[in-house]
Amino acid sequence: MVYEELLGIPLLKIAQNDSVKFSLDSIILASFVSIKKNTKEVLDIGTGNAPIPLYLTLRTNAHITGVEIQNICYELAQKSVKINMKEEQITLLNKNILDLNYNNKFDIVISNPPFFKVTSDKVLNPDDTKALMRHEISLNLEELIICARKALKNKGVFALVHRPDRLTDIITLMRKYNIEPKRIRFVYPKKGSLANHVLIEGIKDAKNDGLKVLEPLYIYEEGNLTLEALSIYNGKVW
Amino acid sequence: MVYEELLGIPLLKIAQNDSVKFSLDSIILASFVSIKKNTKEVLDIGTGNAPIPLYLTLRTNAHITGVEIQNICYELAQKSVKINMKEEQITLLNKNILDLNYNNKFDIVISNPPFFKVTSDKVLNPDDTKALMRHEISLNLEELIICARKALKNKGVFALVHRPDRLTDIITLMRKYNIEPKRIRFVYPKKGSLANHVLIEGIKDAKNDGLKVLEPLYIYEEGNLTLEALSIYNGKVW
Repeated sequence: MVYEELLGIPLLKIAQNDSVKFSLDSIILASFVSIKKNTKEVLDIGTGNAPIPLYLTLRTNAHITGVEIQNICYELAQKSVKINMKEEQITLLNKNILDLNYNNKFDIVISNPPFFKVTSDKVLNPDDTKALMRHEISLNLEELIICARKALKNKGVFALVHRPDRLTDIITLMRKYNIEPKRIRFVYPKKGSLANHVLIEGIKDAKNDGLKVLEPLYIYEEGNLTLEALSIYNGKVW
Repeated sequence: MVYEELLGIPLLKIAQNDSVKFSLDSIILASFVSIKKNTKEVLDIGTGNAPIPLYLTLRTNAHITGVEIQNICYELAQKSVKINMKEEQITLLNKNILDLNYNNKFDIVISNPPFFKVTSDKVLNPDDTKALMRHEISLNLEELIICARKALKNKGVFALVHRPDRLTDIITLMRKYNIEPKRIRFVYPKKGSLANHVLIEGIKDAKNDGLKVLEPLYIYEEGNLTLEALSIYNGKVW
């Protein structure tokens, strides 16, 4: 059951079904990442139904490659790209990123990866679409960062959205693989809550200094989207 | 020239002079750290004129040891403790923490350390009181974390205030020495600014999970202290 859902203004549409829906995290990440005028090649690892590549077309003319391991997501992504007539700007690949040999090709690598570790006490079905999107079954955080490092040009940008409870893992691994964290922003569902997402951006082989922690992003206020969350939905770039 | 300055309500007074002043960072850190009912021993590394031990007496009956390498600060700290009649609860030592052999003695180790790295392009005077308070001349971040680990009991709490641009160093070193970050809070001078301080708390030999990023703390709003900053000054604990 494929239907179309309005993703924002200017009008982007995205194909979804009951198990594959894009999340606001992806849109926020696509809005957060630093893009330069000379950015030519962007790679989205685990593109799902392609919300990140689609949103990025609002911000850049760069060519965007979206890699997705799951066939059901890939098909929705293709549909989404076609609806929006972005076939020239976005290339989709139904592949495992570990099987691709990208070397120093991309200016930006971006990802909204599975958030949860696979632990021995949870039995997960590797054929379950949702399980693959949520759990580190096909790609864990360290593998993702290794892939990103390999695919990035020197001084290329890596941008990630994740859960704050993995921040120590993320920062430790980025430092380990010389992708130095430079910008962090925490996302809060509302005032008075703990952060539920972290946006982090690092630069390959950059100096170990200059990390900036941006102002918090609140999503809801009194049950409604905040002006900033709404402006992100509407394609406005901070 | 020593004078007394009101530190808050309930009335605490602190001895300062032109080169040794307590900073709001210390008070915020003393307000942030997790204290349990059974906390018995607290160590403050680089206690300065003792704002952290003094503030902690508002929150706990635990015994607090403040170690300070600089004689001029130590003398002000002694005076501060005496003015507030806290000689029984606070012990001050005019020592280099590296010369003390604390092993698994403390429930909490807390520190507002020098924030700045010593770089080869800056010539610093090691006899300069301010330089020692601001720059990692007598103790660098890694040495501080090694000292904290050694001094802490199993599952003891380490709490630090620092600059966000050192967050990657802090998190990497805490993980390296098995003091797992558990709570982080960012401090913003006002809305729309970058964070200018980070409060971070870790637990010695704890599991690598469960990090919480608390809501932001704003210090000023329209030129005045925010209600929360004011309540911290006034000794209220979050």
